[in-house]
Amino acid sequence: MNLELIDADWLIHNALVLTLEPGAAPILDGFVAIKGSKIAAVGSAAPPASLPPARRLLDAQGSLVLPGLVNTHCHAAMVWFRGLADDLPLQKWLQDFIFPLESGWLDGDKVYLGTLLAAAEMIRGGITTVADSYFYEAEARRALAEAGLRAVAAQGVLDFPIPGVPDPRDNLKAALDFMDSGEDFAPDLITSTLFCHSPYTCGPETLKRAKAITRQRGLPFFIHLAETRQEVEELRGKTGLAPGAYLESLGLLDESTVAVHCVWLPPEDLDLLARRGVKVSHCPESNLKLAAGAAPIPELLAKGVMVGLGTDGAASNNDLDLFGEMSLAARLHKVWRHDPTVLPAAQTAALATREGAGVLGLGEITGTLTPGKAADLVVLDLNQPHLTPLFDPYSHLVYAARAADVRQVMAAGRWLLSDRQLTTLDWPEIAGRIRAGSRGLGRA
Amino acid sequence: MNLELIDADWLIHNALVLTLEPGAAPILDGFVAIKGSKIAAVGSAAPPASLPPARRLLDAQGSLVLPGLVNTHCHAAMVWFRGLADDLPLQKWLQDFIFPLESGWLDGDKVYLGTLLAAAEMIRGGITTVADSYFYEAEARRALAEAGLRAVAAQGVLDFPIPGVPDPRDNLKAALDFMDSGEDFAPDLITSTLFCHSPYTCGPETLKRAKAITRQRGLPFFIHLAETRQEVEELRGKTGLAPGAYLESLGLLDESTVAVHCVWLPPEDLDLLARRGVKVSHCPESNLKLAAGAAPIPELLAKGVMVGLGTDGAASNNDLDLFGEMSLAARLHKVWRHDPTVLPAAQTAALATREGAGVLGLGEITGTLTPGKAADLVVLDLNQPHLTPLFDPYSHLVYAARAADVRQVMAAGRWLLSDRQLTTLDWPEIAGRIRAGSRGLGRA
Repeated sequence: MNLELIDADWLIHNALVLTLEPGAAPILDGFVAIKGSKIAAVGSAAPPASLPPARRLLDAQGSLVLPGLVNTHCHAAMVWFRGLADDLPLQKWLQDFIFPLESGWLDGDKVYLGTLLAAAEMIRGGITTVADSYFYEAEARRALAEAGLRAVAAQGVLDFPIPGVPDPRDNLKAALDFMDSGEDFAPDLITSTLFCHSPYTCGPETLKRAKAITRQRGLPFFIHLAETRQEVEELRGKTGLAPGAYLESLGLLDESTVAVHCVWLPPEDLDLLARRGVKVSHCPESNLKLAAGAAPIPELLAKGVMVGLGTDGAASNNDLDLFGEMSLAARLHKVWRHDPTVLPAAQTAALATREGAGVLGLGEITGTLTPGKAADLVVLDLNQPHLTPLFDPYSHLVYAARAADVRQVMAAGRWLLSDRQLTTLDWPEIAGRIRAGSRGLGRA
Repeated sequence: MNLELIDADWLIHNALVLTLEPGAAPILDGFVAIKGSKIAAVGSAAPPASLPPARRLLDAQGSLVLPGLVNTHCHAAMVWFRGLADDLPLQKWLQDFIFPLESGWLDGDKVYLGTLLAAAEMIRGGITTVADSYFYEAEARRALAEAGLRAVAAQGVLDFPIPGVPDPRDNLKAALDFMDSGEDFAPDLITSTLFCHSPYTCGPETLKRAKAITRQRGLPFFIHLAETRQEVEELRGKTGLAPGAYLESLGLLDESTVAVHCVWLPPEDLDLLARRGVKVSHCPESNLKLAAGAAPIPELLAKGVMVGLGTDGAASNNDLDLFGEMSLAARLHKVWRHDPTVLPAAQTAALATREGAGVLGLGEITGTLTPGKAADLVVLDLNQPHLTPLFDPYSHLVYAARAADVRQVMAAGRWLLSDRQLTTLDWPEIAGRIRAGSRGLGRA
């Protein structure tokens, strides 16, 4: 490729570039050229080699440049409930706090505003793609589009009354309305689909019809699976089947199905998921805080299952920070198996980027710094005590870096964060409205 | 107390104050008055109540003010080896990387410089007190004093040749020389003692003589205990005793002994430690990264053992960040016991402050915001997406806040960090020297 012919809009140079392409080495004296919404070129230009021409330059001053992080599971608007009720048994937390607030207090405006807050946090933590699933998802989608994030927005489906859908018989119609209304709405950035909450909240007919809808449209199908031991035991008592086998009996398992959590899958389910090409979203901070358990991620990876990382909602996390998820995932699975070689840094970094994009069906679009893919990227400041000295950038990314080290964030060629300032969102306005709206919600 | 008579040097006001005194509620519209090196008053002054007079004011603008964090276990200068070799079996990591570098490359200058780097990181993460244990500890102590940190500096003792002490027969003499040379060296801030590396690297005579030295001087005695299953099995094979029982047989257990890690202590040892008033330092990030295991912290706490948090060295962590340790401790023990009520946020925050100070024998001096104690404190910026909304400041501190949220740090009445800028250390100079000194150290 003749770099002279690129005619780039932006050139980020003087960077240590991690493309996250499989097996690619870190690029010293690296640059990334961006044209429109896409990556035009990635390379090395140690002085005196010349850089490709570009209209605007960003001197990264030795920073790390990597793909934007991919959050494969979130309930963004639940930031409203961040720290509202911690350290409680799961059922008490849900029954006394979360469910009453969702059914009696939440509305579309609050989902919109909460999702703006979540987007602000995610952008400041280097996330450029998020799979969001909640109620009033059209309002969430509006906020994600305003923030400029790439998103897979999924309307929640349950066979119970939910916020915005009081009659469960309307649940799939509501999801279809949501999906149809999204056709002309930031279509390059946002995919609209549905999210069946779980096998214990959706009956078999709903699950089958929902999967038929997403299959027909070639969309991802999300479902919480085997998060707690209790739900797995109950399902087995009712159907005689393990969670994966139950979904298989309904014809739900294929390469577009994303199973979230998968903490308590038995070994035979792991093989089944691998055979069907099912994708898995792993949310370790939430799984630990709720004491759900440690998902068999090394085993899934060994079987070739594609795994991404997710934050889950801030009510059970309590942040939306994939740096924390990387650090915890890499550590948790080591101690769980008494093996310090499990989930090494480079593999863990791939889960938060390339593999996460694959989980969401966006592997051709984002997740690596590859010419032709979207310009979704992060510039991370390495000039800090906790990232000094530098031997291995993957190690720093996973074991020492923090969301606050992210200085610049670009999605689809547009800056969402510039020198840690949000460019698409008005933080003082969002903060003021959230603080006013949350008064009186707490336990006190 | 008549606030008018305080004549404070500094008044931090407009703050949400967590004193971390047992059972104390968060103080709204709070202030902390500082006179000299000590806290003169803590209180609430909602307008129009008047504030005590002070020479200088810091408007915290709604920030959280809490005691400086206490790092109960660190090998500061090991920041040199941060990210040098990860994801390896413990013996390979030690034999192929850490031991050769320590014996062939490390010297006093490098310990000094590395400890400056570690101090910069710890200050930026809100740590005001650190228990450091390494080789050439006089050089580490010099760096900690220069940084203005409160420290318990402990010279490492092993019955093997160590950096700076080639003949093990000199190990206790070297420790005594270190302790004696510290008498007139920042005596208000720095305690000098010794650290017996472990029961498997120090013979019984060394352990007994070392404990006699610290006991006579009323100093803390540190020892790594039961970090790995292997060392516990080997000790049992050799002595027939569990780790705690072995130390008891040597007369080593009392209220000044700090046992670090304690991952593989059997139940009878827990009772023994509790009975003797032994203190425990818990280092979860390191324990997970090395796949050592999960220490029985809830069980120790239930028996009344005083527990603090530690970062361990950055070679096995890879940062020196007590926010990460708090977040992980609170989560790890929940999932390990399948109980989300274990280690709630307020208790975990106490481990990183008040209890940590108690572990180091500094409970009368630091660890809570109490008039008469040292002015060791942190101002933490709450005006950020990941800390919004706010229902429970303990929850945010443990589950969502990060080291980078720390804006101001004071130790003994002196600002060490002001608006995130280091005031006692020259970061560009330290960074340049570390980068130059670490060239050629990596695997590549």
